[in-house]
Amino acid sequence: MTAAGLLSSTAERFTRSAEATDSPISPNAGFAAWFAARSAAHSYTVERVPLTELPGWGFEPGTGDLRHTSGRFFGFTGVRVRTDRGDWEQPIIDQPEIGILGLVTRDFGGVPHFLVQAKMEPGNTNLVQLSTTVQATRGNYLRAHQGLPTPHLEHFLPPRPGRVLVDRIQAEHSQWFLGTHNRNMVVETDRSVPIGPDHRWLTLGQLWGLLGHDNLLNSETRTVLSCVPVAAPPANTGDPYRDALRRSLAGPGVDDDLLTWFNDGKGAMEPVARTCGLAEVGGWRLADGGIEHESGRHFRVVGVRVEAPTREVTRWSQPLIEPATPGLYGLLVQRFDGVLRILMHARADAGSSRFTEFGPTVQCCDLGDRPVPFRAEVVAEPGPGVVRHDSLQSEKGGRFLNAVNRYRVVELPADRPVPVPDGYRWLSLRQALDLMAQPDQVNIQARTLLTALLSTW
Amino acid sequence: MTAAGLLSSTAERFTRSAEATDSPISPNAGFAAWFAARSAAHSYTVERVPLTELPGWGFEPGTGDLRHTSGRFFGFTGVRVRTDRGDWEQPIIDQPEIGILGLVTRDFGGVPHFLVQAKMEPGNTNLVQLSTTVQATRGNYLRAHQGLPTPHLEHFLPPRPGRVLVDRIQAEHSQWFLGTHNRNMVVETDRSVPIGPDHRWLTLGQLWGLLGHDNLLNSETRTVLSCVPVAAPPANTGDPYRDALRRSLAGPGVDDDLLTWFNDGKGAMEPVARTCGLAEVGGWRLADGGIEHESGRHFRVVGVRVEAPTREVTRWSQPLIEPATPGLYGLLVQRFDGVLRILMHARADAGSSRFTEFGPTVQCCDLGDRPVPFRAEVVAEPGPGVVRHDSLQSEKGGRFLNAVNRYRVVELPADRPVPVPDGYRWLSLRQALDLMAQPDQVNIQARTLLTALLSTW
Repeated sequence: MTAAGLLSSTAERFTRSAEATDSPISPNAGFAAWFAARSAAHSYTVERVPLTELPGWGFEPGTGDLRHTSGRFFGFTGVRVRTDRGDWEQPIIDQPEIGILGLVTRDFGGVPHFLVQAKMEPGNTNLVQLSTTVQATRGNYLRAHQGLPTPHLEHFLPPRPGRVLVDRIQAEHSQWFLGTHNRNMVVETDRSVPIGPDHRWLTLGQLWGLLGHDNLLNSETRTVLSCVPVAAPPANTGDPYRDALRRSLAGPGVDDDLLTWFNDGKGAMEPVARTCGLAEVGGWRLADGGIEHESGRHFRVVGVRVEAPTREVTRWSQPLIEPATPGLYGLLVQRFDGVLRILMHARADAGSSRFTEFGPTVQCCDLGDRPVPFRAEVVAEPGPGVVRHDSLQSEKGGRFLNAVNRYRVVELPADRPVPVPDGYRWLSLRQALDLMAQPDQVNIQARTLLTALLSTW
Repeated sequence: MTAAGLLSSTAERFTRSAEATDSPISPNAGFAAWFAARSAAHSYTVERVPLTELPGWGFEPGTGDLRHTSGRFFGFTGVRVRTDRGDWEQPIIDQPEIGILGLVTRDFGGVPHFLVQAKMEPGNTNLVQLSTTVQATRGNYLRAHQGLPTPHLEHFLPPRPGRVLVDRIQAEHSQWFLGTHNRNMVVETDRSVPIGPDHRWLTLGQLWGLLGHDNLLNSETRTVLSCVPVAAPPANTGDPYRDALRRSLAGPGVDDDLLTWFNDGKGAMEPVARTCGLAEVGGWRLADGGIEHESGRHFRVVGVRVEAPTREVTRWSQPLIEPATPGLYGLLVQRFDGVLRILMHARADAGSSRFTEFGPTVQCCDLGDRPVPFRAEVVAEPGPGVVRHDSLQSEKGGRFLNAVNRYRVVELPADRPVPVPDGYRWLSLRQALDLMAQPDQVNIQARTLLTALLSTW
């Protein structure tokens, strides 16, 4: 079979899975009780510790970078950022590697199911969320932490027994990570997979449904889901919004004009960031055991000591980023001539490795940002717009503490021209998803929102 | 027209241009005299100056980085590199931007021609080579150097009058550049283009022919040419080698298996490089006015003062990299079951931004490298192999001094199995060219060699 043929058959099978909104092997009716039981089964404590007393971590002489004494895991360094939205300096996570975020998939009753697990991460607001089958930093899979081996990792490393259906390298949150990437993988197996009580097989339709719940699918699960291809179903639902969405999924695809517009923006940008020692970052200080901005805004870097008997490593200490305020991530969409269009923003962030990436229409960490980002007020207070998706989602609980952001898709009134500033562009859903087939074109916030949009088909 | 349709029609038109090995408007018969005249017309002097006395440049306090006093243009910083071939430290060019390398194309007699120019660069061994229509750093096109405007730049910046046929972001030499990229562009115009005596319209077939000459097409021209798509002509030449090459151009394309193999290699790598101050780079020293390795090997960073009355800026000083020895870049190819296959090496270099890129079979800067790279001896002394391409080419004369490397394509005896080490893989020409449609997948040395291979069709 050709690559294109394989892709299309994979997309068709995943479409079947997306259309299955319930499953006989993991009925929706049993989900809440299962998840509550698993949440209760994990005992853990997360205790704040001043960074200066964080076991195993220290500030490097000279640079002042915060690093583990082993030199492994991750660290914090500094970055000086120049963008069209202003210049600033900030601490940033330094973890230059490609981790693995993987879902195992298997057919049950002819419908692909995905293996997720209830997993605790120290920074999650509710600690336990649904994670991918495997979530492994390079340190994890090389066993840098000397803990138990990561279960199911063999599906994702060569020589793997199954068939790789999705394998895309995508960036982490570029506002806070300096070029860190993950492989977003889906690997199919036709063998029985040994699972424990924390695991559950869910269809794509069930997972899309859970994306509407607050703080349930962790950011690793969301980014892998965003890479799962589906085929456009017929635009015959009778609902003008859904039909317009399905037409937008069918096309048009990425064309030269779009790529050149995107490249023009990249070429015109100042170089985004230069690294510097953490000690040299202007405007930030060590106070109350954490690193904070003099204004008290943006975020703090804090330390925690964790005990988690159910994790591969049962006890550890680490720094986390604690945002000062919730963020607002919004996608404006509009039916135009019967096809849904999506307003995306080509933007650079502190850790962007490609100068600019497509982000959602609105991406702000702090509604006090000045100037207020274009149309942030429409996302915050939709007014005449129709809210098509609205949820609170947590960012990577292994690196962020209580980082809960609002994700919202708002549909503007149909067929009215909307003037947009430089750097913004209307895309079809097909174009947005095609761009996501390549690394560093669509940021992680937009990927979650595009999945949320897709789930309303 | 769809994007795929446009691409295919563009490829078909460029195929016509590739088949035109001579042109009535720029006959081959007149080329040598024209080029000699243009070389003689450019007067210039390039004089060595110790880095410590280089006007406008200085070593930054603290880091020791070499920078222009304006903070613009480019600089040298340090990098600590870890690869599967060993660990080392080295100076590296720090120029985090996306420049423009552009060819204007226009039909003459129904055949697309490309506008090249005889251009002087201070580091070229013969000073004048054939360059792209436009070669502009971000500083150039924002007029950082306050010189004359770059002629023809308007074709490549919005709002551009013509049609963009090629627009690909590709990396510079990642052995010596830290993440620097260029947009490789071809823009079509149907209007008359004012040109001077240094300009010449050439077909793709003529340019491919000139690639067989030593030190004639500069590295900017070579990388843009490598991005020009062509369609596979029929495999009916009667020559088994050429027919096998044409079949290899027709397919197979990139499949999931290839991408996953490539990603496996990226994921397994150590993070390639960490920057450090130039003053901290171990094993290098300032001596005789340049920066050199203690062993005298690898390369030196030297200063030059340039006078070039025919350039946009007529007088300037700058540092250049001067390699200690010529490099050897070799591609091994083999007919297997009637289809040509190409042995590529997934490798990381000091400035690689994506952990690994595909390079040629052999890429060594110094035949004294230990261990000798796989099959370097076969490229150096082909023995039973057939040499399909052999030329000396200069690297970017705006950054390198006398950097002349041997580029060689060697065909191994057909249909004999060749065991290859980890990290090496046989690709079809179609696969190699498909990978090149994305940034950071195929390095600049391999891009030149693949174009050289293609030119033998």
